Amino acid sequence: MPLGQRAGDKSDSRYCGVEVLDFPAGDGLPAVLTHSLSSAFDFLLAPLVDPDYRPTPGAVLPVAASDLVLSPSQWSSHIVGKISEWIDLDSEDEQLRLDSELTLKQEIAWATHLSLQACVIPPPKRSTCANYARVVNNILQGLTNMQLWLRIPLEKSESMEEDRDKSETVDSWEWWNSFRLLCEHSSQLYVALDILSSLPSMNSLGRWFGEPVRAAILQTDAFLTNARGYPCLSKRHQTLLTGFFNHSVQVIISGRSNHNVSQVSEGVLSRDENHTEDTPTQHALSPYLDYMAYLYQRMDPLPEQERFEINYRDFLQSPLQPLMDNLEAQTYETFEKDTVKYTQYQRAIAKALVDKVSDDEVSTARTVLMVVGAGRGPLVRASLQAAEETGRTLKVYAVEKNPNAVITLHSLIKLEGWESMVTIISSDMRCWDAPEKADILVSELLGSFGDNELSPECLDGAQRFLKPDGISIPSSYTSFIQPVTASKLHNDIKAHKDIAHFETAYVVKLHRVARLAPPQEVFSFAHPNFSPKATNQRYTKLQFELPQDTGSCLVHGFAGYFDAVLYKDVHLGIEPNTCTPNMFSWFPIFFPLRKPIYVPSESPIEVHFWRCCGATKVWYEWALVAPSPSPIHNSNGRSYWVGL
Amino acid sequence: MPLGQRAGDKSDSRYCGVEVLDFPAGDGLPAVLTHSLSSAFDFLLAPLVDPDYRPTPGAVLPVAASDLVLSPSQWSSHIVGKISEWIDLDSEDEQLRLDSELTLKQEIAWATHLSLQACVIPPPKRSTCANYARVVNNILQGLTNMQLWLRIPLEKSESMEEDRDKSETVDSWEWWNSFRLLCEHSSQLYVALDILSSLPSMNSLGRWFGEPVRAAILQTDAFLTNARGYPCLSKRHQTLLTGFFNHSVQVIISGRSNHNVSQVSEGVLSRDENHTEDTPTQHALSPYLDYMAYLYQRMDPLPEQERFEINYRDFLQSPLQPLMDNLEAQTYETFEKDTVKYTQYQRAIAKALVDKVSDDEVSTARTVLMVVGAGRGPLVRASLQAAEETGRTLKVYAVEKNPNAVITLHSLIKLEGWESMVTIISSDMRCWDAPEKADILVSELLGSFGDNELSPECLDGAQRFLKPDGISIPSSYTSFIQPVTASKLHNDIKAHKDIAHFETAYVVKLHRVARLAPPQEVFSFAHPNFSPKATNQRYTKLQFELPQDTGSCLVHGFAGYFDAVLYKDVHLGIEPNTCTPNMFSWFPIFFPLRKPIYVPSESPIEVHFWRCCGATKVWYEWALVAPSPSPIHNSNGRSYWVGL
Repeated sequence: MPLGQRAGDKSDSRYCGVEVLDFPAGDGLPAVLTHSLSSAFDFLLAPLVDPDYRPTPGAVLPVAASDLVLSPSQWSSHIVGKISEWIDLDSEDEQLRLDSELTLKQEIAWATHLSLQACVIPPPKRSTCANYARVVNNILQGLTNMQLWLRIPLEKSESMEEDRDKSETVDSWEWWNSFRLLCEHSSQLYVALDILSSLPSMNSLGRWFGEPVRAAILQTDAFLTNARGYPCLSKRHQTLLTGFFNHSVQVIISGRSNHNVSQVSEGVLSRDENHTEDTPTQHALSPYLDYMAYLYQRMDPLPEQERFEINYRDFLQSPLQPLMDNLEAQTYETFEKDTVKYTQYQRAIAKALVDKVSDDEVSTARTVLMVVGAGRGPLVRASLQAAEETGRTLKVYAVEKNPNAVITLHSLIKLEGWESMVTIISSDMRCWDAPEKADILVSELLGSFGDNELSPECLDGAQRFLKPDGISIPSSYTSFIQPVTASKLHNDIKAHKDIAHFETAYVVKLHRVARLAPPQEVFSFAHPNFSPKATNQRYTKLQFELPQDTGSCLVHGFAGYFDAVLYKDVHLGIEPNTCTPNMFSWFPIFFPLRKPIYVPSESPIEVHFWRCCGATKVWYEWALVAPSPSPIHNSNGRSYWVGL
Repeated sequence: MPLGQRAGDKSDSRYCGVEVLDFPAGDGLPAVLTHSLSSAFDFLLAPLVDPDYRPTPGAVLPVAASDLVLSPSQWSSHIVGKISEWIDLDSEDEQLRLDSELTLKQEIAWATHLSLQACVIPPPKRSTCANYARVVNNILQGLTNMQLWLRIPLEKSESMEEDRDKSETVDSWEWWNSFRLLCEHSSQLYVALDILSSLPSMNSLGRWFGEPVRAAILQTDAFLTNARGYPCLSKRHQTLLTGFFNHSVQVIISGRSNHNVSQVSEGVLSRDENHTEDTPTQHALSPYLDYMAYLYQRMDPLPEQERFEINYRDFLQSPLQPLMDNLEAQTYETFEKDTVKYTQYQRAIAKALVDKVSDDEVSTARTVLMVVGAGRGPLVRASLQAAEETGRTLKVYAVEKNPNAVITLHSLIKLEGWESMVTIISSDMRCWDAPEKADILVSELLGSFGDNELSPECLDGAQRFLKPDGISIPSSYTSFIQPVTASKLHNDIKAHKDIAHFETAYVVKLHRVARLAPPQEVFSFAHPNFSPKATNQRYTKLQFELPQDTGSCLVHGFAGYFDAVLYKDVHLGIEPNTCTPNMFSWFPIFFPLRKPIYVPSESPIEVHFWRCCGATKVWYEWALVAPSPSPIHNSNGRSYWVGL
């Protein structure tokens, strides 16, 4: 049964499994399964084949249980196959290598026959594991549904190579990285992390959140004992497990019980007070499961915004083309619900109104405010509310190019009785001939990367009808990027099998990513800009230094954000360090790399970004320069551009 | 006019150009061209636009000469455009960057209008040249015929970065490498190397023979002065230039004359004694040209074999499938002409016959020899000649699966009157039921990589009818590989735009390649092999160390060879260090890498090769492990295999 109910969270991390250490000979597997399920575990990680087996011609594979002892749905829901651990494909002993290859293929074939969802394959036994990777890669080519989870100890451990200096530590992430590079980032290859009693640094751990980790195999040895004799985890382990729960990673308890507490008398942490009646012999690892349930249930419920966005997690969307295309009603509907955003606009407009018209002039002065890109009117409403709040008199022009939105706008004005204050202009702001000049120009043309929906070009066109001392809201905006590990996004893009999708930026609710260094500024724009030499082309070089204790990592691309100054101290943005809370209009943007780049420990990442402007389109180009040069992405905007 | 005539060599390296240093203002270009051509230069490297020009709105580009002053064929045959050298696309000065971008695009557009074959673009001015590469990459996407030659000084020079330690040296190959990676290995981007007075080490220079070098711009400052006052080059420069001549690289003389020798009185080195009458004022750089002609003409003529193979240089061929397909008459015809090969076979058979039958037994003993894969009979002939030479009596079975070849074989036997000695068997050696057992089994089933045409599988099948003490000729064979830079081959494979062509081995006459480390052994097979555990699967890990003074390099793949022991000390092979001279049956094999790999200076290259055997096919898989892992190539033989 699930570890607990957490509103909105339907991820696999609710389920907890248990590793079967001893080979269940005969038909022992159903009994083990029944016992574990009745002790509230959800599934078994169980050996499929007698570990004493070595291939011999004509021999029948000594499996743990015939396919008939469990129903097909039991096999697929409750059993993760554990491939024999003696397998050593990189041994110097050729016979052992050949036996290992044959056995691995036989066991996987058997697991496929059972329709298992996944098999855990043993950790590489040495730092060079090319032959292991080759055989697994061969197998992966033939799998349709089943996943392989490569078991990797979560540690920086001592080297296993005999000829190396014993004091040298090996970063187990490097094994995983070599293995998956050799297997060409197969989308069916995942990681099962063995959690031991000692943990690497948080920065080192953080890399795994961008990797395809499916399971955390928690060793009983990793537990401490609390004052009452029960198992518990260190603070760092707790933080790590909470991270896994939040990233859809399932826990599997493994090892021998080190805490022989009586379950019957001490039921405090037990979730089901009756279960002892059904199962007279409690599962030896139940105290650990109970602690997992406690950790799971202790987590804060998902915030409403996260719940709303949960189905968008790591789902790649093409950015809007609001200039070329007209938005649909549903899109307006969604964005208009973002009250936080319009509250910020109202605050900014109010401050601008007060600056434009002093309290003494309130009765005589009238401020001309133009909303460019008025849509169905939310900024018109925010402007009028700001005027009311500050007691200023407004004349509003609402300029909108989408004729469908203009229809709604007319109804709104009539419904609200704003006819005397608001003039609706059905026109593209870039070619409208305004009858008078504006004091304040209000727009909401920003994309996830700030300028990526062509706010600069639109406002350059609109500032013709702004007074020389006029105010633009927003008055400036800046884009940001940071390097990320994002294997899920990489694989989704790779599935298109072309270069164009790797040269496109995506709007995406980032979830399974590792953010490797703090975001840095890319491009800035300020409005109005009356300089005759002003250009909207930009070129920025950035260098990212990863925290020293991160270790090496793989960069799949860059996460992008923006921050906008609406007016003076009123800002709006999604840059993680300064983001406006509870705003949902923008997900981050993601710029992929055609080939993920390996960044050795302590090597800086240098990336160059260009914003390029042509006669009919605007586009970005980007390239890595260090640690090694990538091709220039999206040359001439061949794959991705925003139409003018 | 060409530097000279060299039998069989029709490459561009016969032509020598001259760089025009001063901008030919007005309509000076035709006069400069006439003067240079009459002084026996073949073409000019000439500026196209006034170097004082900076873009201004509405300005007309101040070109060196209107397109009308030369005919279209003169423009395209005799002028290589020189792009303005002030262009600096990576300056910190934004205005200079923007001016540079505009001017570069204008000059290239003008050169395209003139139908020039190539333009030389100036060397990067600093070690980071990402913006320069971006603009060139943009231009390359739009070019159809014209080539761009990036000028690179051939040196390990002092760093140009002001903030670096002045004593640090920069390897100019690194600039080229970054530039072409950013430009995605564009097939229209080439190198023009500036040859200065000092040269890097030979290993460092050697890398360039695998790069797309189109021109060597030889500075007059690089010349020495001989005892008679004439320009000459150091031995190392001479070796380098001979290398360029042999690799189709054209020379361009550049600089001011440092040798003011009278051409009229001292005509010893002059190629055309009459030219002084036609051109009263000799070109100031003629003495340098004369020296180039002298160097060119001094080279040994191309050996006959090279001349025969010249049209195959760097041309990728798919390996034969002699087991699945039947060879055609023309293929037999070509291979049968390789007399060196059959002489080696005859020597080996003779030695085996003498070992089998002592001189005392000559009159009584008859040796049973089977030629498996007899084709049209060359090995039958070699066997009978060996028997005659040693006075041994032979009974020959000629086994051949190709019914077409069998027809020719019958005619041959009849024509030569060998009916009593030779029995023809029209059958696949793997299923023939032999009436008696053989003393000697002779075959020629080797491919460029030894076992790649399935000699091991064929001979395993044939050894059923070999006596326990019988001899196989060949008795063993070994494959070899070495890492190479081969940008031409990479680009030819890339043109197919799929992965399969990057996972295929090719037979190719390697020419424009840099061999980066000595070849090492890969797989060995010995025959006969009666061991019950014998397998033809193989797995080999190799580590290559590049000479320390090479510097960094790019590896596009591995060149493969074989060496075979026919019998005792008689061998046959194409491994460069031990190859049999004047044999033309085999070109090397080339195993590409899907993505060329950058190998930092002094980093070892580790590659793994597998020979895999399935029920119906045999294939190789290969992967780089160091300096960084590649994907496993050709997993499951999905792209390239040899059918059984």
